[in-house]
Amino acid sequence: MNNEHLLTGVRILDFTRALAGPTCTRMFAEMGAEVIKIEGAPLGDMTRQVSKLKGDRSFYHIQHNLNKKSVCVDLRTRQGMNIVRELVPLCDVVVENFRPGVMAKMGLDFDELKKLRADIIMCSISALGQTGPLSNKPGYDYIAQAYSGVTSMIGDPDEAPNIPLVGIGDVSTGVHGAFAIAAALLHRERTGKGQYLDVSLLDCYYHNHEVNVHQYSGSGGEIKPTRGGRHTSYLCPGGVYRGKGGDIMLMAFMHHWKDLCAAMEKQEFVDKNGWQTDAERIERLDEVILLVEDWLATFPDVSTAIERLEMFDVPCAPVLSVEDTLTHPHLVERGTVRTITDPLVGEFKIPGMPIKTSDYKSDSEYVAPCLGEHNVEVLKTLLDKSDEEIKVLSDAGVLQVAST
Amino acid sequence: MNNEHLLTGVRILDFTRALAGPTCTRMFAEMGAEVIKIEGAPLGDMTRQVSKLKGDRSFYHIQHNLNKKSVCVDLRTRQGMNIVRELVPLCDVVVENFRPGVMAKMGLDFDELKKLRADIIMCSISALGQTGPLSNKPGYDYIAQAYSGVTSMIGDPDEAPNIPLVGIGDVSTGVHGAFAIAAALLHRERTGKGQYLDVSLLDCYYHNHEVNVHQYSGSGGEIKPTRGGRHTSYLCPGGVYRGKGGDIMLMAFMHHWKDLCAAMEKQEFVDKNGWQTDAERIERLDEVILLVEDWLATFPDVSTAIERLEMFDVPCAPVLSVEDTLTHPHLVERGTVRTITDPLVGEFKIPGMPIKTSDYKSDSEYVAPCLGEHNVEVLKTLLDKSDEEIKVLSDAGVLQVAST
Repeated sequence: MNNEHLLTGVRILDFTRALAGPTCTRMFAEMGAEVIKIEGAPLGDMTRQVSKLKGDRSFYHIQHNLNKKSVCVDLRTRQGMNIVRELVPLCDVVVENFRPGVMAKMGLDFDELKKLRADIIMCSISALGQTGPLSNKPGYDYIAQAYSGVTSMIGDPDEAPNIPLVGIGDVSTGVHGAFAIAAALLHRERTGKGQYLDVSLLDCYYHNHEVNVHQYSGSGGEIKPTRGGRHTSYLCPGGVYRGKGGDIMLMAFMHHWKDLCAAMEKQEFVDKNGWQTDAERIERLDEVILLVEDWLATFPDVSTAIERLEMFDVPCAPVLSVEDTLTHPHLVERGTVRTITDPLVGEFKIPGMPIKTSDYKSDSEYVAPCLGEHNVEVLKTLLDKSDEEIKVLSDAGVLQVAST
Repeated sequence: MNNEHLLTGVRILDFTRALAGPTCTRMFAEMGAEVIKIEGAPLGDMTRQVSKLKGDRSFYHIQHNLNKKSVCVDLRTRQGMNIVRELVPLCDVVVENFRPGVMAKMGLDFDELKKLRADIIMCSISALGQTGPLSNKPGYDYIAQAYSGVTSMIGDPDEAPNIPLVGIGDVSTGVHGAFAIAAALLHRERTGKGQYLDVSLLDCYYHNHEVNVHQYSGSGGEIKPTRGGRHTSYLCPGGVYRGKGGDIMLMAFMHHWKDLCAAMEKQEFVDKNGWQTDAERIERLDEVILLVEDWLATFPDVSTAIERLEMFDVPCAPVLSVEDTLTHPHLVERGTVRTITDPLVGEFKIPGMPIKTSDYKSDSEYVAPCLGEHNVEVLKTLLDKSDEEIKVLSDAGVLQVAST
């Protein structure tokens, strides 16, 4: 399909599997780049085996591989690797997220790729990075999260930490990788040079510490950042408050406190001794919670409480469940949630492309490829292989296809 | 300073404050772009008032504004706005993260900017987006998080949700914005055209739902994604296990289970009835936790348990505190954590640039500007103002400086 979009004209050779790598290349694909996903025969990307909600088709794989082309080759054969090597010079970028060292074993590390195309841009995405004593450990999102100190900042301070059931690290790392590649492409425009990019979940997770690292370091260790349950430790009110039938995120700190007091008709608390600043209110957090939650309990439900808070411009939100988000008018109107149509399993919903542009649709009618769906197209149009040559490779199992 | 790097040659006019916007432009600045930060007199970016750990200098502002230039003008004056408007044609990109509508009120919306430079790229970063019924609400990171359904996926399922005390949404959104801008710059190289980019925390938070949305939608509402405390709801073991004196992240699901059993010398559990698959083990999560935590309790501390797990290649990590991360050999060697030297407050630590490149240092010796530090440089070199003109503007308070 390859609709015209911001990144039309870029061609990517994509060795990624699972989530972080595929997110990176999917953003390119959705923005018009040609992404040729190399999948190892016989099964391809392991995520083709999960989230099979209808028949044998993976909803997970669809979501993360929209608008890519799939070429499925047996990477354990010389002919399979030859196809890959023939494709490299035709591509601007190679992206991979194997465990460090795997690309080198396949003869496809940056030095080898440069021999095939001098100005190649290569981006390696990994859990803990390509260098350093931990780089060889098997890694998943939460492993990097634990090493980054982010896990330690989630949950009740008196309990073991909690983990978010959302792919925060993988997705964020994929986006960091996409930015790195786009920057390297701009650099190539200017200098003619390629680049190697090392992007890891650990580094990207660590990037999220907007205050914790400098506060600990800058205070000489006096401030020890710790998790705070459902409340921030530096703003008050700032956190989750229980309402009738649901929860409310309330950010009524600093100058917003007087607006909350007005909404609650508790004007006396605006200037009350010991309640005036965030620091003072944090000292009496239990009392603040009691005051606010007693007031919230006077509303029949969360949405009427939100209406009242909005009248006074108090920053607030209902804590929506995933179920709630799918039909919320704001998320639907913006395309935060989108409906896609898969040729095999039909319509379902996934997150929309988070980048909205003035000149192009953000969510075109993209589909995700079946395994090896583009074997013939890619080998014919890019590598000038004949029908006969393709038949020989297919008969030998070097090229494979599956209709899922 | 503007070291040569991937994005050298790009010039950005930066109206951002707080965190999401400054993260976007800081990544450009650290990668060699010239970022001119316009700060409204008299106080500039509000984050100059927080994290004052030594004297009157904000550690927070330093971290998020490395290698930028600061021009402080009174935006309430005609002369101040004239300076801004004179700078627009000299810049490739304008970035802002005001509440929607503020740039239009200043006469600097995309249509007005295009009159000043036809191929301008403008990126607006906001909490809930530029369009849709909620777009005008006051927004902070956690407000967008609550609307995205992400908050609902964090914490114990029987309790109110928890919030991570880390700037996950702001930072991720800044990176999404940086990628969007880089893509638009590539598009401009190819087409000569500018672009307007609308990037919101809500959309970027929602992007993190790697399974939740399609699972709910694809199962016709049968699967209702909910938070799971310190364990994932689809892999087992996959979560936080308590060790002696600390916690361990253990990802010993699927084929890793047999490795964990080997490490525990509990081979009989590999093929034990009702323990073989992740789905079966999730059904008896309490027993799995007991088995693993009883075993972990036999080690004197977390690091000896980790050593044993690593011998068997079981994906695992200690849950590091922020304090732990600052001196961890892996994080130090990779530059995941870096030491910077501020001319006023000296050395302290912050997260390193998460993008490592082959040709350039990732963490140069960058500093952050004092308020209005580059007034004279920018007005002289870019706008050809004379010393006399600059003096008149300064005396009138149109240009301001402060040594913090």
